[in-house]
Amino acid sequence: MFIQNTWYVAAWSHEIDADGFFARTITGIPVLMYRSADSTVVALEDRCCHRGAPLSLGRREGDDVRCLYHGLKFDCSGACIEAPAQDRVPAQARVRSFAVVERHRWIWIWMGDAALADPDAIPDTHWLDDPDWRSLPGYIHYDVNYLLICDNLLDFSHLPFVHPTTLGGPESYAKIRPLVERLDNGVRVTRWTMDTDVPPFAAAVKAWPGKVDRWNIYDFTIPGILRMDSGMAPVGTGAFEGRRIDAAEFRGCQALTPETATSTHYFFGHPHNFAIDRPEVTRAIHESIVEAFDEDRAIITAQQRNLARDPSFTMMAFAMDSALVQFRRIVERYLDAERENHAQSTV
Amino acid sequence: MFIQNTWYVAAWSHEIDADGFFARTITGIPVLMYRSADSTVVALEDRCCHRGAPLSLGRREGDDVRCLYHGLKFDCSGACIEAPAQDRVPAQARVRSFAVVERHRWIWIWMGDAALADPDAIPDTHWLDDPDWRSLPGYIHYDVNYLLICDNLLDFSHLPFVHPTTLGGPESYAKIRPLVERLDNGVRVTRWTMDTDVPPFAAAVKAWPGKVDRWNIYDFTIPGILRMDSGMAPVGTGAFEGRRIDAAEFRGCQALTPETATSTHYFFGHPHNFAIDRPEVTRAIHESIVEAFDEDRAIITAQQRNLARDPSFTMMAFAMDSALVQFRRIVERYLDAERENHAQSTV
Amino acid sequence: MFIQNTWYVAAWSHEIDADGFFARTITGIPVLMYRSADSTVVALEDRCCHRGAPLSLGRREGDDVRCLYHGLKFDCSGACIEAPAQDRVPAQARVRSFAVVERHRWIWIWMGDAALADPDAIPDTHWLDDPDWRSLPGYIHYDVNYLLICDNLLDFSHLPFVHPTTLGGPESYAKIRPLVERLDNGVRVTRWTMDTDVPPFAAAVKAWPGKVDRWNIYDFTIPGILRMDSGMAPVGTGAFEGRRIDAAEFRGCQALTPETATSTHYFFGHPHNFAIDRPEVTRAIHESIVEAFDEDRAIITAQQRNLARDPSFTMMAFAMDSALVQFRRIVERYLDAERENHAQSTV
Repeated sequence: MFIQNTWYVAAWSHEIDADGFFARTITGIPVLMYRSADSTVVALEDRCCHRGAPLSLGRREGDDVRCLYHGLKFDCSGACIEAPAQDRVPAQARVRSFAVVERHRWIWIWMGDAALADPDAIPDTHWLDDPDWRSLPGYIHYDVNYLLICDNLLDFSHLPFVHPTTLGGPESYAKIRPLVERLDNGVRVTRWTMDTDVPPFAAAVKAWPGKVDRWNIYDFTIPGILRMDSGMAPVGTGAFEGRRIDAAEFRGCQALTPETATSTHYFFGHPHNFAIDRPEVTRAIHESIVEAFDEDRAIITAQQRNLARDPSFTMMAFAMDSALVQFRRIVERYLDAERENHAQSTV
Repeated sequence: MFIQNTWYVAAWSHEIDADGFFARTITGIPVLMYRSADSTVVALEDRCCHRGAPLSLGRREGDDVRCLYHGLKFDCSGACIEAPAQDRVPAQARVRSFAVVERHRWIWIWMGDAALADPDAIPDTHWLDDPDWRSLPGYIHYDVNYLLICDNLLDFSHLPFVHPTTLGGPESYAKIRPLVERLDNGVRVTRWTMDTDVPPFAAAVKAWPGKVDRWNIYDFTIPGILRMDSGMAPVGTGAFEGRRIDAAEFRGCQALTPETATSTHYFFGHPHNFAIDRPEVTRAIHESIVEAFDEDRAIITAQQRNLARDPSFTMMAFAMDSALVQFRRIVERYLDAERENHAQSTV
Repeated sequence: MFIQNTWYVAAWSHEIDADGFFARTITGIPVLMYRSADSTVVALEDRCCHRGAPLSLGRREGDDVRCLYHGLKFDCSGACIEAPAQDRVPAQARVRSFAVVERHRWIWIWMGDAALADPDAIPDTHWLDDPDWRSLPGYIHYDVNYLLICDNLLDFSHLPFVHPTTLGGPESYAKIRPLVERLDNGVRVTRWTMDTDVPPFAAAVKAWPGKVDRWNIYDFTIPGILRMDSGMAPVGTGAFEGRRIDAAEFRGCQALTPETATSTHYFFGHPHNFAIDRPEVTRAIHESIVEAFDEDRAIITAQQRNLARDPSFTMMAFAMDSALVQFRRIVERYLDAERENHAQSTV
């Protein structure tokens, strides 16, 4: 149902502290995360192989985990290394462990074949902890399938309708068809709006002489990672030609991670490179984004209720859906390839 | 699952105001209702044909509706007349519109083939706004399949048991087998109780010299419409022979509209033709009815829980079930006919 | 799904008072219980044979029950003896009645073929009302399948992990493999821990000179009845050899009764034979047990959530699972036998 061999964001770094456990379900699988003594993040299946109790209700014993139902102990590779009332523990007694990489404040996890987990394939989101940029960590939980949120992020024509007072923009914004380019594992969407009003969230954090040229250029790649170069500059200062003078620039980083077939984790940060010595600006930007994302969640959740009520309903594609249609095809291509590999490997 | 080509009550007139939207699910389909400039009620599928978002979260633009997810605009026939980012809108871009008739304070809707929607087939409920009669609008929501409520209304032997202190009557009332006559699209149930006590709700609103002759004569027709001539007159004044002297007469109007397979809208009014200049009498009658209908809801909801727990349970028919058994057969006959028509039309 | 021909505990005696009704679902079947004039407990299917309404919403008429939907009346054998609007009541108009035995404060019910219900097969729990023993009645409701609780009770190696501060014991307790003996309808589990610390709950209610020898010897029999001889005596006083000097003895009685496939009634008492004139000791013991059982419920409910999330998960047996594996096989053997009998009887 979900792509297995890909990097998902599992958590913000700060969610996993030095001592405790952190439990989160990812692609339907309960995952226990914790930091070993050297601060490396460990991710194990959060389900004792004995009778299925959550290990996250257990306790740390150094870098190991003791299940507090019947006392089985697992090391950080997932191997059961102690079972009360027996001297030998069979080798097959283990829980799954998952490849994990901590990078730029995000914990990335690989739910598929760990041998294929290549850290170089992790998308670059260095703006999240680059000293020249500022952002706050965002997280929203959705009770919808993650693809409905992908759809939303792949079609910014919803901005003036869903976010009139936040991300905003005039309704004419929706008329501009973005350039959609195909990437190997996703799409690149480019949209320029020239000589337009400053949107409310940007007017609130920076003074502007008048109208602006505004851009959104983002890569949206599997499994559901958005990395965006967006911003605005005073009209006529040459932003479109590549000069960014007196601009407000952002590098939005967003990651959708399926929790279950009907729920999703949404991680986001919205780094900016201006006023980086003014935490109140960072906070105001963050709060605007959270407010706007709550607007998205309201409409998408209502959409999901309508879809759930009548599974026979089929969506109808419009011109604005170019990017999302392409992305859904890419997801299908990955899923087909994994099904085929799986079928071959089990012949 | 539900009869399509029939008139359902969708709302009370006052529920749909001049400016806003009113959303209600009917026979499993989300419906948006609103009044156009000339006050005509419009009913559209409450689900944008694009990605399924509810139009009821959108906005009015004159007599049109703008979806506030991606900005598609629909006219009151359901046709999409504007889509951002494209000049031509394909003809198949539309949501369903439903035939609607507003009559005697009820909004009637036809969920099936609009070409078959004959306003003359709407049952007469003129007492709901006849100046010689008074009533208040009633609505109850049920979490049960509508047929269980039909059953209840088709067998008044439950009155002394479910409603001892409201609609009341002695338990001997249940012993009298009503006359059940077959109508083309339902049944007519007639029950006379001669020389009996005044039931509590009637004693509360009118003075009586002694015992009364009491009658309930109602048509119960598909999809689930009850229209009742009921009342009582002092014993021996000839009510049974057709004279209604010093009588308290009612013309109960009730309509069951399936919301989903497991929930139902229940609309009702209980017009009376006495004391019509005393609003407190109208209110007292209405409150008695609401109290009694809450008693019905309690027992029917408990019945539904029992049935849901064990789908293998089969009901056992008794003599008192004559009317409801006939009505369920009529419903089945209509459903069969619609299935057959549907099968032929798709050959 | 559940063994039918066996005695289940349906209630504590005090739950069924002299006048009212008591309703409880047992093995998926709604059951109405009440006391007839001679105080005998009657158990009927809590579902009118007419339209499925709960009889427990009806009323007592002497030893009979009137359904307060349409007025059908049932005697305490389940036969319908009155139906409004008809003179003859057909013989098949009845609800099921269940064999019931009240013994030692527990109401035992037989959900299967009443002809097979042998009161002599009821397990002995006389300590619950023996004047030489004291206990308080316990009841917990679980939202899990009853077998997960059986598992828990069949493997006391969980004690030091789930109950470190209540039932307690050092973790070495889990290393001692109990003696598991096969009974005809269950298993006997025997575990001695010599020269060990007094567990917290026992230290709170009795003074001890030092360490103790501790034992748990229990029969766990179908459908899910635990009867335990447990306790402790000062070390070296010969408990293991059969002398119980200055001992604290208990005769725990526990009964698991499936409510539905995913919920369970749990009845328990923990009789003790020391300090029987000190109600505060009885209360303290009871509260320790309740606190411990709440700990069990927390972990088992978490386990159930994990299992429900992924039906493909299979448990892995360890040495400590000997008793529970045997018990599950016995349950399967009973279920198979009932299925076979049923198949033969319906040929």
